[in-house]
Amino acid sequence: MSRLVSGVRSLSRLISLLSLATASNLATAASRPAAQPSSFQVFRDVPSLRQLRHQLLRNERTVGFVPTMGALHEGHLSLIREAARENTDIFVSIYVNPTQFGVNEDLSSYPRTWDSDVEKLEKLNEELGRSGAPGSGQITAIFAPTSKVMYPTLPPSSDIDGQGSFVTITPLSSKLEGGSRPVFFRGVATVCMKLFNATTPDRVYFGQKDVQQTVIIKRMVQDFLIGTEVRIVSTAREADGLAMSSRNVYLGDRRRAVGLTIYKALKAAEDAYQSGKVSRADILGAARSITDQVLAEQRALTPSERSLFEVDYISLADPNTLDELDLVDPTQGGVLSAALKMAPLEENKPGEDCGLGDGKVPVRLIDNLILQPRA
Amino acid sequence: MSRLVSGVRSLSRLISLLSLATASNLATAASRPAAQPSSFQVFRDVPSLRQLRHQLLRNERTVGFVPTMGALHEGHLSLIREAARENTDIFVSIYVNPTQFGVNEDLSSYPRTWDSDVEKLEKLNEELGRSGAPGSGQITAIFAPTSKVMYPTLPPSSDIDGQGSFVTITPLSSKLEGGSRPVFFRGVATVCMKLFNATTPDRVYFGQKDVQQTVIIKRMVQDFLIGTEVRIVSTAREADGLAMSSRNVYLGDRRRAVGLTIYKALKAAEDAYQSGKVSRADILGAARSITDQVLAEQRALTPSERSLFEVDYISLADPNTLDELDLVDPTQGGVLSAALKMAPLEENKPGEDCGLGDGKVPVRLIDNLILQPRA
Repeated sequence: MSRLVSGVRSLSRLISLLSLATASNLATAASRPAAQPSSFQVFRDVPSLRQLRHQLLRNERTVGFVPTMGALHEGHLSLIREAARENTDIFVSIYVNPTQFGVNEDLSSYPRTWDSDVEKLEKLNEELGRSGAPGSGQITAIFAPTSKVMYPTLPPSSDIDGQGSFVTITPLSSKLEGGSRPVFFRGVATVCMKLFNATTPDRVYFGQKDVQQTVIIKRMVQDFLIGTEVRIVSTAREADGLAMSSRNVYLGDRRRAVGLTIYKALKAAEDAYQSGKVSRADILGAARSITDQVLAEQRALTPSERSLFEVDYISLADPNTLDELDLVDPTQGGVLSAALKMAPLEENKPGEDCGLGDGKVPVRLIDNLILQPRA
Repeated sequence: MSRLVSGVRSLSRLISLLSLATASNLATAASRPAAQPSSFQVFRDVPSLRQLRHQLLRNERTVGFVPTMGALHEGHLSLIREAARENTDIFVSIYVNPTQFGVNEDLSSYPRTWDSDVEKLEKLNEELGRSGAPGSGQITAIFAPTSKVMYPTLPPSSDIDGQGSFVTITPLSSKLEGGSRPVFFRGVATVCMKLFNATTPDRVYFGQKDVQQTVIIKRMVQDFLIGTEVRIVSTAREADGLAMSSRNVYLGDRRRAVGLTIYKALKAAEDAYQSGKVSRADILGAARSITDQVLAEQRALTPSERSLFEVDYISLADPNTLDELDLVDPTQGGVLSAALKMAPLEENKPGEDCGLGDGKVPVRLIDNLILQPRA
C-alpha cells in the first residue's frame, strides 16, 4: 500500500482505524482525510518503503531523513532544506510517538495537522524543484506509520516500568529534560532506532533546539554502529528570538510575550560567557536575574493581565556528557539550556488571542544556546 | 586495516594491544598470532567492513551473517553451511561480548581459540568452494572487533544498573535463562543490534540450541523494523545427542556422561507429548523423573566417581511469549527447555580426562526441544 490513491486509501484507512486502539491514534487518523499528495508518496507501512529505498540505493541516490511528529513549522522546513543540499532524496516521517510522552504529558493534546503538513511539504518540494541547484534534492517519501506498524507486538508503553522493546542511553537520558521526563529519551531513542531501520538513511537531520536529543542521537548512532551521519541544524527562531516549536500554537499573545523570557535569559548568560566569565555562578546568575525579574513583574499584575511560569531548570553543561559544569573550559565551550513551564492563564480578557486551547493548555518551553569554544 | 598482511598485522596488533583494557581482551588478542587467513578478509573495525558491504550491495550480492563468540564447533559450521545455501557472501563475527556475562559468570574463562577458529573457517570455505553448487556462497569477511570498537564511548557494563547504551526486550528477557542471568539478554540484544548495524545482512543465522535467544532476536528484528530475515538452524548434536556447545570442552569424560541427562530428560518429556500427553504435570514429570533418578544414582557414588549437578529449570513454554504453559495446545505446540549446572568435580582420578580447566570450571548446560504442533 505504497501509493495511496483515493479508493484504496479509504479502504486502508478504514482497516487502520479498526485496528487502532488509543484515542490519540484515532485523532491522528481522523485528521488525515483530504490531502492528496502528488509530488511524493505516502507510506503507511515498512515493506513498500524499503522497496523504494533499495531502488534508490541501486541507483546510487542518497537519502536524507527528517523525523518529525508533524505540526510542521519553519524549523522542520529548515531541516528539510538542509537535507536537500546534501541528498538526492528526502524522507520525512510524521508520527506522534506515544512512548516519549509520560502518562501525565500532552500526548492527547499534541497538535495533529496532517492536511496542512502535507500542504507545506508539497509547497516546499515545489520550491526545491524550482531552485534546480546542483545537489538540490526533493522530498520523495513521507513515512506516516500507524502505531501498530511502529509497535508491532506489545502496545506502546510510556510507563517507566512498562514492557516492550526499548533503547536506553544512560546516563545521558536522565539529565536535564530527563529529570522532568523520565521516559522521554527512552521513547525518542527507541522510535528513532525503528525509523532509522525503516529508512536506512545516509544522513539524518535534527534541530539544535532539542539539544539533549541531538547529544543522545549522536551517542546512539556511535554506540550502536549505525551507518548514518547525524546533522544538527541551527534552531529556527521567530524575529524576536523565540525558538520555533509545534507547541507554540498553544501560547497565545500574552504567554508568548512572557515565554520569550527563556531566550532572553539564555542570551544574558551567553553574553556573560562572551564577556569573559567562566564560572557557573556568573553565567547562570545572569540568566536567573532575568527570569527572577520577569516573574516578579508578572506576579505584581492582576490575573487577567499576567502570565505566570515556573523555571524547570537552567543548565550549564558539558557538550558531550551533559554533566553540569562549575567552570567552563573555554577550549571546550558548553551548552546553556533551560525549560520554562508556562502555567495556564488564570483569567482571559475579552477579545484576547489566547492560542489553541484558549490558554488552558500548560506549555513547557525549552531552548538552548551553545557556548562556542573561544579561539 | 582491512586486509591484515604480516607487517601491517604486527603493527596494528601492537596498537590494538596497547589500547586494550581488560584481561579478557588481552587474552583474546594474545591468542591471535599465527593464523594468516587467505580466502577471506579479517576486519577489526567498522568503516572498512561497511565499504565491502556497500560494494556487495551495488553488485547485487547477498550477505548472510553468522554472529559467534568464537570457539567454533560443528554447530557454528552448520549455521555457515545454511547461510551458504541462501547467500553469495557470508560474514562471520567473532567477538566475546562482555555485557552478556554477569559479574560472576565465566567471561574470563570463556574459551578463546582464534587460530583454530580461523583454520576451521578456511577449511569450511574450501569445502564450500569445492561444492560449487549454484547458490553456494562462501565466507567473505570475518569481523573480529575490539571492545573499544563495539563499545566506543562508555566501557561495557554487565552490571544490571550499569550505564551505557542498551537494547532491552521485556518481558521475554526475564524468563527462563533470564531468571538466572539477569543481564544476559540485554547484552545479547545490544551486541546483536550493533553487529547487525555493522554488517547490514540480508539474513542472520542463529542456532535452535539457544531457543530463548532465537525468540528474542526475532522479536528484536520485528519490533525495531530491522531489514533482515532471521533463520533458525537445528541444534547440532554429538552422536549420543548432547547439544554442541563451546563450553563442552570444560566437561571432561565424567561430567560429559552425566551432562547428557539434560537431553535424556527433554527427550522423555517430548515422548510424553508425542504419546498424547498435554498437561504440564505429565510432560515435565517425565523429565523430572529422569533428572531425579540420575541425581540419586550420582549421590550414591564416591566423590572420585560421581558428578553432581543442579537442575536450574525445566520449562514448558509458549513458543512466542515464553510464558509457562499449564497445558499444551496441540495446534500451537510448545518449547521444552532446561538448564543444568554441572558442579566442579570433587575429586579427580589419576589419568582421568577432566576437560579444560581440570574439572574445576562449573559448566552450565542448556538444551531444548520444540514440541511441534500436531496435525
